[in-house]
Amino acid sequence: MARLVMKFGGTSVADIDRIRNVARHVKREVDAGHEVAVVVSAMAGKTNELVSWTREASPMHDAREYDTVVAAGEQITSGLLAIALQAIGVDARSWQGWQIPIRTNNAHGAARIEAIEPDTLIERFGIGQVAVISGFQGIGPDNRIATLGRGGSDTSAVAVAAAIGADRCDIYTDVDGVYTTDPRIEPKARRLSRISFEEMLEMASLGAKVLQVRSVEMAMVHGVRVFVRSSFEAPEAIDSSKGAMPPGTLICDEDDIVEKQVVTGIAYTRDEAQISLRRVPDKPGVSAAVFGPLAKDHINVDMIVQSVSEDGSRTDMTFTVSDSDVGKALKVLDAHRGEIGYEMVQSDKGMVKVSVIGIGMRSHAGVAATAFAALADKGINIRAITTSEIKFSVLIDADYGELAVRTLHSVYGLDKQ
Amino acid sequence: MARLVMKFGGTSVADIDRIRNVARHVKREVDAGHEVAVVVSAMAGKTNELVSWTREASPMHDAREYDTVVAAGEQITSGLLAIALQAIGVDARSWQGWQIPIRTNNAHGAARIEAIEPDTLIERFGIGQVAVISGFQGIGPDNRIATLGRGGSDTSAVAVAAAIGADRCDIYTDVDGVYTTDPRIEPKARRLSRISFEEMLEMASLGAKVLQVRSVEMAMVHGVRVFVRSSFEAPEAIDSSKGAMPPGTLICDEDDIVEKQVVTGIAYTRDEAQISLRRVPDKPGVSAAVFGPLAKDHINVDMIVQSVSEDGSRTDMTFTVSDSDVGKALKVLDAHRGEIGYEMVQSDKGMVKVSVIGIGMRSHAGVAATAFAALADKGINIRAITTSEIKFSVLIDADYGELAVRTLHSVYGLDKQ
Repeated sequence: MARLVMKFGGTSVADIDRIRNVARHVKREVDAGHEVAVVVSAMAGKTNELVSWTREASPMHDAREYDTVVAAGEQITSGLLAIALQAIGVDARSWQGWQIPIRTNNAHGAARIEAIEPDTLIERFGIGQVAVISGFQGIGPDNRIATLGRGGSDTSAVAVAAAIGADRCDIYTDVDGVYTTDPRIEPKARRLSRISFEEMLEMASLGAKVLQVRSVEMAMVHGVRVFVRSSFEAPEAIDSSKGAMPPGTLICDEDDIVEKQVVTGIAYTRDEAQISLRRVPDKPGVSAAVFGPLAKDHINVDMIVQSVSEDGSRTDMTFTVSDSDVGKALKVLDAHRGEIGYEMVQSDKGMVKVSVIGIGMRSHAGVAATAFAALADKGINIRAITTSEIKFSVLIDADYGELAVRTLHSVYGLDKQ
Repeated sequence: MARLVMKFGGTSVADIDRIRNVARHVKREVDAGHEVAVVVSAMAGKTNELVSWTREASPMHDAREYDTVVAAGEQITSGLLAIALQAIGVDARSWQGWQIPIRTNNAHGAARIEAIEPDTLIERFGIGQVAVISGFQGIGPDNRIATLGRGGSDTSAVAVAAAIGADRCDIYTDVDGVYTTDPRIEPKARRLSRISFEEMLEMASLGAKVLQVRSVEMAMVHGVRVFVRSSFEAPEAIDSSKGAMPPGTLICDEDDIVEKQVVTGIAYTRDEAQISLRRVPDKPGVSAAVFGPLAKDHINVDMIVQSVSEDGSRTDMTFTVSDSDVGKALKVLDAHRGEIGYEMVQSDKGMVKVSVIGIGMRSHAGVAATAFAALADKGINIRAITTSEIKFSVLIDADYGELAVRTLHSVYGLDKQ
């Protein structure tokens, strides 16, 4: 017997037929003797509808009231799934954030979970009852519903798993696991059977859409094993009672991965833009003069490259922001031209960032050099490079994005079993 | 300054434009210096959608989960109206049943309000904040959302008004008051400026759709003055600050009605069916034998007529049920034929019940006799009669229903100012 959290996203509960299908997935695990908490999102499209209503009511809407409106989506799904479970003989009860409670901070619209009281849920496991929990929401210190921000249901699932001491948190999604890279770009991409928390965190941060970054962080902090699997598989295809596992990817501690690869995956993000400040004074405080005002205006700066000046007086400074922030960033830079003291600003939109991720980089030298050689070989120009302990990223022109992904996927042997 | 409850039904909040219109109605009262609690229903059609989903998930759904799903409708409206109010400069906050709390009993799906804690709401009035309250719902002793059953938002509004000691409960609806009879049947029907609680209770029970019966009962018990008015009127048409009142009907204590009429209104209900048991033994206990089993099967019996037997041994017993219950009632009677001992059963569907209501009947004799003569004059056959202190009802063939309403409306002078 194990204790499981099963999380189903919006497309998995898009209509009553799919909710019934989810109920069969849950029944399979209950029949195998497991204690189960299910975390659900709103039916696909429902959250967008509710959000658009709040905007229509007022573009400057109150985050508390936004939360009240939008949280109704998950409330509906949780009740419907409890009904569908009862209809196939599974004892089930729905739970909203305020009932458990799932306590959050007061940052309405983008709240963080602070504590989950597990006692009631665990007590109900004792009588064989499945808990169907509304994802994406909790209750703030002001006794009002607080939502976690888009995609927050993954985070809810992992937080519930940590609180109840679950053996595993199964994230059912529309793909059957985490791939070495996006299969739409590289058909030879392979599904990873395991990936470490650290690698998954980088993959998610660098563009892999499978899981929310925050949910991976939380899983890593609390040591929650997360299994990404497909919700579209027939629920009865797997015999859970014998411990058989369906196709999927287990996100786990590095120590649980026997065969470690040097490189685990290739991620990419589109719509990057490069901004270069030419002939900036090379003196202390200039970085703060550039990036302080940008941060204040909530412009997210990613890669930063500063070249060494020849004579120690003037240098070039290059950084990336998302395409949609370029206009705003240029305005901010113009407004602070006096303090910064640059001579000229240049910007280029439509770049992509390709990232190579692997825990093995820690102990292997020359991993990045291999990439640079392979990209040069294909005539792909690298505009900027950033590195960290277990990944490095290159910024290139969008036209070469897919070629770069395929080239790197191949050069590290990811297309081979 | 007064303390007001304003209640808006589903058609008044059917889309964001109408919610904005409701916000303007509320602003008018706030600008006039009043303390305001607003009670809202789900957007028109929303409750039906949610109910149909619960049925699709399982025809035998759990009432607790039904409540969780269906209550989401009002939750959405309350948040959206709070946003719309804030957008026009009115401080407002939404409240769900569990937040106030509005405590109900445990009869999920048809719960009754047991207590409302008014302190938080009154405290917020003190800082000039409008409370936007989800109607139709509260929280049960099991800490789960409980809904009051269809139309429960009227009851919520009156209960809130009683709890906060409101000076008046304004029910905004798609008609501009209570009429002497249905204007679709009798174009000469007049709007009543005042009607007593007792009369309104009879009107609502006997077919007038303007208010839920339970809300009128509650208003009567707690002495809450209820004002029925139109939500489609331009919000700014009335200057509330000068105490001007728009068209509408005040439901109030009998003593507040100066000019009392003998007859106040004519109500009617369609789809009545008559069942007659022929040659039933005329002995003690036979009524119990007939109506006990029907009650047990939740068949609502309305009018009951028992003729006096000629020889003291056998009699005929006639009663009415709704058309839709006839089949079920006949089955029950057949199953209990042995105990009842009737010789034959006859049933007729498609009757209407026309009722004449007026507090003046208490002190005036011959009110019903006037009706019988007028109906006979038109050749309308009366199949059954029931009377009570302030009303009497006649059962007639549906074909004559509208003629009967118009005849009675005229004979009591209701079409005259």
